[in-house]
Amino acid sequence: MANEETKPTIRFGILGCAEIAKKVSRAINLSPNATIYAIGSRSLEKAKTFAACNGFPTVAKVYGSYDEVLDDPDVDALYVPLPTSLHLRWAILAAQKKKHLLLEKPVALNVGELDKILEACESNGLQYMDATMWMHHPRTNKMFQFMSDPNLFGRLQSVHATFSYGVNQHFLENDIRVKPDLDALGTLGDTGWYCVRAILWAANYELPKTAKALRKPTFNEKGVILSCEASLLWEDDRVATFYCSFLSDMSMDITVMGTKGSLRVHDYVIPNEEKEAFFHTNSNSYFGELSTGWAPKPNECIVKTDIPQEALMVKEFANLVGGIKFGDSKPENKWSIISRKTQVVIDAVKASIDNGLQPVHILY
Amino acid sequence: MANEETKPTIRFGILGCAEIAKKVSRAINLSPNATIYAIGSRSLEKAKTFAACNGFPTVAKVYGSYDEVLDDPDVDALYVPLPTSLHLRWAILAAQKKKHLLLEKPVALNVGELDKILEACESNGLQYMDATMWMHHPRTNKMFQFMSDPNLFGRLQSVHATFSYGVNQHFLENDIRVKPDLDALGTLGDTGWYCVRAILWAANYELPKTAKALRKPTFNEKGVILSCEASLLWEDDRVATFYCSFLSDMSMDITVMGTKGSLRVHDYVIPNEEKEAFFHTNSNSYFGELSTGWAPKPNECIVKTDIPQEALMVKEFANLVGGIKFGDSKPENKWSIISRKTQVVIDAVKASIDNGLQPVHILY
Repeated sequence: MANEETKPTIRFGILGCAEIAKKVSRAINLSPNATIYAIGSRSLEKAKTFAACNGFPTVAKVYGSYDEVLDDPDVDALYVPLPTSLHLRWAILAAQKKKHLLLEKPVALNVGELDKILEACESNGLQYMDATMWMHHPRTNKMFQFMSDPNLFGRLQSVHATFSYGVNQHFLENDIRVKPDLDALGTLGDTGWYCVRAILWAANYELPKTAKALRKPTFNEKGVILSCEASLLWEDDRVATFYCSFLSDMSMDITVMGTKGSLRVHDYVIPNEEKEAFFHTNSNSYFGELSTGWAPKPNECIVKTDIPQEALMVKEFANLVGGIKFGDSKPENKWSIISRKTQVVIDAVKASIDNGLQPVHILY
Repeated sequence: MANEETKPTIRFGILGCAEIAKKVSRAINLSPNATIYAIGSRSLEKAKTFAACNGFPTVAKVYGSYDEVLDDPDVDALYVPLPTSLHLRWAILAAQKKKHLLLEKPVALNVGELDKILEACESNGLQYMDATMWMHHPRTNKMFQFMSDPNLFGRLQSVHATFSYGVNQHFLENDIRVKPDLDALGTLGDTGWYCVRAILWAANYELPKTAKALRKPTFNEKGVILSCEASLLWEDDRVATFYCSFLSDMSMDITVMGTKGSLRVHDYVIPNEEKEAFFHTNSNSYFGELSTGWAPKPNECIVKTDIPQEALMVKEFANLVGGIKFGDSKPENKWSIISRKTQVVIDAVKASIDNGLQPVHILY
């Protein structure tokens, strides 16, 4: 780690005091190449309290507005956990001020908005990344390796993904995720984002051809989606299905079938334990003698990590930013591409919901 | 066990020397209230070899035809593992000869055929059961108890089930399950049967309202289904999805979401190990501090069994038959009802496949 700690440090500004910003503040502190440099809130008091309670360096700047963070020339990169409806405005302003962008998901209300954000980052030579933390867990890489192995997994046939958590009455009445003017996509944008990303990831980011909602979603009285289920179809008739909900107990399952193997994980979004994570595979299995068991047996794989996935995310983002700031690297566009693909699929599912569950063609 | 072994013994006749009959022969031997009494095959030689190789009692009768088994007055019950297209003929003949019926699945080519079989059993006062072995594992009961608990599981929201096994070229060219004149439903009848049963079971056997195939299935050149995926929808917009295939590696997953808990099992059809089986649950879980883990953690449940699920199936069936033969019990109609519900759903999925993936209303 000593070696890494001597890497140039990227200075983060944070917009707002969202709950998730506590987790990411800790992650910035844990990342060897990043430091919390500033936070801005519409309430200076709130920002001060947040900084004091979340381990900010004593030299960190605390501002009573978002604009002051943007105007601080020493801020390299912004972490933006604002409600989705505010992303377009603040991301564009940030890009104009040449701040690299770590954007909380759902990244935008639709792909039209996201395109404006991505264009602003690109034209200003800035790194963009969405804050989908599980992408950065070493387990995710291990699972991807398994699915990339023609002998252990073969060709993808089917994926099912879920992300749900059961919310209480306070959440249903007050949380930004159920407010049409703040996070209009509801659970589809919040938990569905992860399901869609998981499916794209399992398909090596090959976009499906069509999306179709499987049922009329459960809406709240304002028309925000609280629970829904959809299917995605590729050209060759591979199918993915997903379930996302605020109305079921916690689930974070991916079940992936290949011609020669299969994989399942139960906590892909947030591992049960921070330091070690599990997944299960089997390859070239068949029935045992007299069909009384499996041969070979499935495998349980354990992947350990010293620093949590959100700190690995910050580290990777800061590395990319550092390459641009201190070297002659260009922004890594992988992250904007998979972010856009995710949004495009979510938009198609939303369109299918809006058009009475008809299949919707997915266009990149 | 001594107590149980003194129970009246039910004498089984077996029609044919199917591979699966080896497993069930062992199960009859392991069951304390059942005995193998006769086997019939179109080839006497084949039947003799089968009896010799599968631990038949030395007194067991070996016949060169199915008819002789049916005509043997000492046979109480028949186990019928013939190709599906032969079920109607032999099940009806068996009922006319007053033989109780343990029928291998898929039980019939369609519900019209099954109704004739069920009617024949009913009008002759005979016990009917389909040979869906996992229904009889004590784990199945434990999982059902969990899903019935309003505090631990709540109300069902979503189910996903799979059953797949990857077959070789020999199977694809020769197995009865891919022959239109023998098992016309292909993998939908074979592996799909389990998925549909699992979904019905998770829904406490409440029939869904509609079935819809999610994609054009993969067919062989004779038009038999090798792989397919479908969704089932209830009145209140609960959804189930399933994936069944001969073209993926082994999978036997059920993932069930409830409002307060969820459950997952990876080997529901045939447990990895005969003597102990696992499943995983969580209840009233939420994110841990800073959303860096789960609280509480999920549970791994282990269920042990002294005798395998197929022997428990034989034991339960033989108990029911014994109650009729030696007591004044009536046939238990639970088994015909859930068998018929399973068939009705499979028929609706098949109809959706045949009509270009339109939703099909499910009628009992």
